[in-house]
Amino acid sequence: MKKIKVGAVGLGRLGYRHAENLAFRFPNAELFALCDANEAKLLEVTEAWGVPYAYTSYEEMIANKELDAVLITSPSHLHTRQIAQALEAGLHVFSEKPLGTTVEECRIAEEAVEKHQDLVFMLGFMRRYDPSYAYAKEQIDKGAIGRPVLFRGYSQDPESAIAGALAFAGHSGGQFIDMAVHDIDLARWFLKSEPKSIFAIGGCYAHPEFGQYKDGDNVSALMQFENEAMAFLLAGRTAPHGYNVETEIIGTEGTLRIASVPQKNMVEILDQYGVRKECSQDFLERFSDAYMAEVAEFLNCIETGRKPEVTVYDGTKTTEIAYKCKEAFEKNELVRM
Amino acid sequence: MKKIKVGAVGLGRLGYRHAENLAFRFPNAELFALCDANEAKLLEVTEAWGVPYAYTSYEEMIANKELDAVLITSPSHLHTRQIAQALEAGLHVFSEKPLGTTVEECRIAEEAVEKHQDLVFMLGFMRRYDPSYAYAKEQIDKGAIGRPVLFRGYSQDPESAIAGALAFAGHSGGQFIDMAVHDIDLARWFLKSEPKSIFAIGGCYAHPEFGQYKDGDNVSALMQFENEAMAFLLAGRTAPHGYNVETEIIGTEGTLRIASVPQKNMVEILDQYGVRKECSQDFLERFSDAYMAEVAEFLNCIETGRKPEVTVYDGTKTTEIAYKCKEAFEKNELVRM
Amino acid sequence: MKKIKVGAVGLGRLGYRHAENLAFRFPNAELFALCDANEAKLLEVTEAWGVPYAYTSYEEMIANKELDAVLITSPSHLHTRQIAQALEAGLHVFSEKPLGTTVEECRIAEEAVEKHQDLVFMLGFMRRYDPSYAYAKEQIDKGAIGRPVLFRGYSQDPESAIAGALAFAGHSGGQFIDMAVHDIDLARWFLKSEPKSIFAIGGCYAHPEFGQYKDGDNVSALMQFENEAMAFLLAGRTAPHGYNVETEIIGTEGTLRIASVPQKNMVEILDQYGVRKECSQDFLERFSDAYMAEVAEFLNCIETGRKPEVTVYDGTKTTEIAYKCKEAFEKNELVRM
Amino acid sequence: MKKIKVGAVGLGRLGYRHAENLAFRFPNAELFALCDANEAKLLEVTEAWGVPYAYTSYEEMIANKELDAVLITSPSHLHTRQIAQALEAGLHVFSEKPLGTTVEECRIAEEAVEKHQDLVFMLGFMRRYDPSYAYAKEQIDKGAIGRPVLFRGYSQDPESAIAGALAFAGHSGGQFIDMAVHDIDLARWFLKSEPKSIFAIGGCYAHPEFGQYKDGDNVSALMQFENEAMAFLLAGRTAPHGYNVETEIIGTEGTLRIASVPQKNMVEILDQYGVRKECSQDFLERFSDAYMAEVAEFLNCIETGRKPEVTVYDGTKTTEIAYKCKEAFEKNELVRM
Repeated sequence: MKKIKVGAVGLGRLGYRHAENLAFRFPNAELFALCDANEAKLLEVTEAWGVPYAYTSYEEMIANKELDAVLITSPSHLHTRQIAQALEAGLHVFSEKPLGTTVEECRIAEEAVEKHQDLVFMLGFMRRYDPSYAYAKEQIDKGAIGRPVLFRGYSQDPESAIAGALAFAGHSGGQFIDMAVHDIDLARWFLKSEPKSIFAIGGCYAHPEFGQYKDGDNVSALMQFENEAMAFLLAGRTAPHGYNVETEIIGTEGTLRIASVPQKNMVEILDQYGVRKECSQDFLERFSDAYMAEVAEFLNCIETGRKPEVTVYDGTKTTEIAYKCKEAFEKNELVRM
Repeated sequence: MKKIKVGAVGLGRLGYRHAENLAFRFPNAELFALCDANEAKLLEVTEAWGVPYAYTSYEEMIANKELDAVLITSPSHLHTRQIAQALEAGLHVFSEKPLGTTVEECRIAEEAVEKHQDLVFMLGFMRRYDPSYAYAKEQIDKGAIGRPVLFRGYSQDPESAIAGALAFAGHSGGQFIDMAVHDIDLARWFLKSEPKSIFAIGGCYAHPEFGQYKDGDNVSALMQFENEAMAFLLAGRTAPHGYNVETEIIGTEGTLRIASVPQKNMVEILDQYGVRKECSQDFLERFSDAYMAEVAEFLNCIETGRKPEVTVYDGTKTTEIAYKCKEAFEKNELVRM
Repeated sequence: MKKIKVGAVGLGRLGYRHAENLAFRFPNAELFALCDANEAKLLEVTEAWGVPYAYTSYEEMIANKELDAVLITSPSHLHTRQIAQALEAGLHVFSEKPLGTTVEECRIAEEAVEKHQDLVFMLGFMRRYDPSYAYAKEQIDKGAIGRPVLFRGYSQDPESAIAGALAFAGHSGGQFIDMAVHDIDLARWFLKSEPKSIFAIGGCYAHPEFGQYKDGDNVSALMQFENEAMAFLLAGRTAPHGYNVETEIIGTEGTLRIASVPQKNMVEILDQYGVRKECSQDFLERFSDAYMAEVAEFLNCIETGRKPEVTVYDGTKTTEIAYKCKEAFEKNELVRM
Repeated sequence: MKKIKVGAVGLGRLGYRHAENLAFRFPNAELFALCDANEAKLLEVTEAWGVPYAYTSYEEMIANKELDAVLITSPSHLHTRQIAQALEAGLHVFSEKPLGTTVEECRIAEEAVEKHQDLVFMLGFMRRYDPSYAYAKEQIDKGAIGRPVLFRGYSQDPESAIAGALAFAGHSGGQFIDMAVHDIDLARWFLKSEPKSIFAIGGCYAHPEFGQYKDGDNVSALMQFENEAMAFLLAGRTAPHGYNVETEIIGTEGTLRIASVPQKNMVEILDQYGVRKECSQDFLERFSDAYMAEVAEFLNCIETGRKPEVTVYDGTKTTEIAYKCKEAFEKNELVRM
């Protein structure tokens, strides 16, 4: 079994995790090159893990002829360019969400993907690869809950992570672009339809600093889809209990709730605070398995020549909808697609 | 201890329960008269329970000089007139929700209440008297969850009750007027503010028959309040698992969820269907205690001369907001208050 | 409807609650007399509630010819004598558990009850009247869980009540007599059989003071019943989370768990401690409804001439089994019935 | 990184899973040889997975000089002999539980392990490697629940697996040896003490066939440990809801419950059966991660020269206690260690 040689760009929290997984946890892959602008960190990691190549230039990395694929976890505004470059260089590409920070950028990625049909391109909507989400999808698709009526998605970051969120607030594109895209993707996936009208509201309930970016610390949107199904999204940054990603799909014959208690494990505690479950504190803890599974799927697609379920168009569409939410929120108006 | 002599009008499901409670479960009250258009049923009940007086005419009942108070559970469109008549006759009045079926009707009740300040008037928003809701209110008011960010209220009737809902669909005023008023009241109560903008959607996901009344079998609304807090309401008629009244208040420092599992009791079952809790099947089962508590409060107000927390203005305001929701839903437009 | 005139003896915590319920919450009963050794408290309560008669002597109270019934919540060692005296005086009797503090005492009550078949005698095993226990019994009796295999009963008092438990330790008879009797009654009720062999262990895990009474702060027993079913009981005094009364019946076709989370209401809290439910803190909070229901049943038996399900023999048998548990614990030996 | 070459013996359900994991999921290991008496199955698997060597003789396999380690999942009565042979051949050994089917057999393994201190020997008590159990252990060891009072362990196989259990009943050693060993290991691990007295009961509640082997379909034991802590174990074969492995440790300052709902994932379903969670159906589903983690630990011990936490003596002690339970059950007597 020949190993797939992967070059990874970006050593932020998620990038580090992906690189570590590639270095140690996939028998069919090899972390062959790493790229990051922070040279000290780059060298420390490549040395510690015995990664053959280290680059501070992405262009140089993708020029390495031994590489088979790249995994992109760089800052969001670099995604589409790096995707296009890597495909152009003949490499399979896995990019973390979002596809791009504007719809225009997304078109660049679409073009590149269309031009290189022989290569695998996959977008990191990892929730689809979480066992519970996958199970829910399977149930819905086989009709277990009848006709979907309402999708409800909460994505709440813990208050404990607020400093990072504030530092990043000017570049993140705001709550809808940065956080709600996951729920937008899930709503489209579960409901198998596209939104036709959107209303969005929110505010700065604890952190007025977000206001200077025309953003809120908690925002929500109500959408109606072309098949009449409804979707309600909440994206927040002030959850005291942890990283709360919770999804509900109400159907005419049943309701499914995924992680309505964002429990970190199967331990229940009975003490002076009552009967309780401790919660996951961040995406790396909650979606640890899903981050493995999405990359396993990417590698398997390369090996078998299959195409992943998540396409470049899912990336564009999700970005487009997130911008419409942002527009509705900023103008305080109903927006139609 | 002199007993309060109460005359009750309406022997529908809730009216029957209230009458039965008055007849047998309140040491400080006496069910002194009953009124219903269905004479056979009326006589059957009055005889069985030993109620002194039976009337098919409301006017005749309130002319009974021995009465102290009336309890109104007649059809909604009769409420305001009956309220005004009883107050005019010098009787304390407890009326089930809604106050009236139009805002104009509500004004009639307001005037009568204002004219008779010496009498007790109370509106039956029973959820406020449920122990769990009361506890949540207490916690929120003392700041336990910080600043409220989002109120989420689900009111779902079971699919098993759909025949009754369809039969009543032409007279109910629709989902927002008939069902969502409870959540509108709760949102105002918990958030201590009034909505300023409303968007509402929905559809006929299982029962197209509701379409002829410009109504849906499941509808939802997203509102922003004057204090920036958000509220999301869902009113549905197709819940397969039972009577699902579920409320969540997300604050900056904590979240409270009331009855997120609408469990009928404290029994958990482990069998071939998994680990499960059976659910309440209707409002009489779920709010059995609350229906007692609200009437106990009414009787106590009469005895002590206090005024109930729920005022006639809560009735008008709730009706007004429900109509704005209906307008937003029917026009598919954002509505501002 | 003529009211049943009840005399209540004992103004401890539970006695006070029963007396208060009789004074204010039962339309068909009147709290006609109160008896307590503490004269100051007695007079304060009778005056505040307008109770017609106050006695410091039980004998004098039961000589009151207007009385119909007595409700006994005096110290346990007085129960059987007071039961016999009241029956002898022609009064219906409701006695709180335990029937007596020794099996010999219980025989005194049995004799008196047998002699006065025309009078109602009822023993206060209130758990049977809790809606969740009643529901579980109904399910089991109709075969919903198949053949019962194991009964598990936990009765844990909160650590916060330890001072009272220690003060009372010399007179309580110990954990098996004082606390486990409820679970012994439930096991017999649910399993419809009697134990044949018992092993019991325990210790002083937090409070060595119990050792001087040959008791533990946490004790347990494993029993096999004549129909082969098993029962495991835990009685403890050190629960940090509250008053934990939890019961499980495992059958060949299903398992029922009653109050496996001893939640005080239907509110779920999401905060820095995780996702949690607050717990009931004592028996008055947890079994508030059951204490009403058992007395309602007693009153109804008087009115209708029925006999209650809980008999005097349940009291004797439960006491007998509790003593066998105590014997097994003290001798560290297997005990056969 | 040189891969550890592992030979695996036994292609039963768990053996197959372990072999598959070694073949595809550990970057630092290679499934180098497979051994099974069923030649057809052996050849099918080795061919499909590309395993270099296939043996129907265990002795021949361990004679393969390229091997570094063996993983034993053969029938229980072969374990100790195969352990000794492999160590003698200079191979690291991982053996699934039980260590041996008699205490005498266990001594053979002990001797071999003592003689080969340079080699890694590890026993497969996988529960210790489950994230929730590991978390509970960590909490208990740092004093989060105070002094342990009671360990409760349920190990229930689903009724759906009864045919296999019956077929195997004559060779399994019975419920205590076959199933309860896991809970015995957990009790010793969590309580850090050894039992001093044991009482055990049970019966054939649904399947009389177990009676011919002096076994029951549900059995339980109550033990007291040298540090006074109590342990209650239930081992059953008739759970209708699935594979129920549930553990509780009650301490003086808190209680931990692991998997009290044996949920298969984080999806909650609301439908005609109530609000429910589906359950894991077997050990492979429930402990999928733990089976990976225990082997990862074994491989890491080989690489680093560390010794695993689970020793050969844990195997002997657990077997010894299981036999005492069996003795107590068969004789219906209290047994002291």
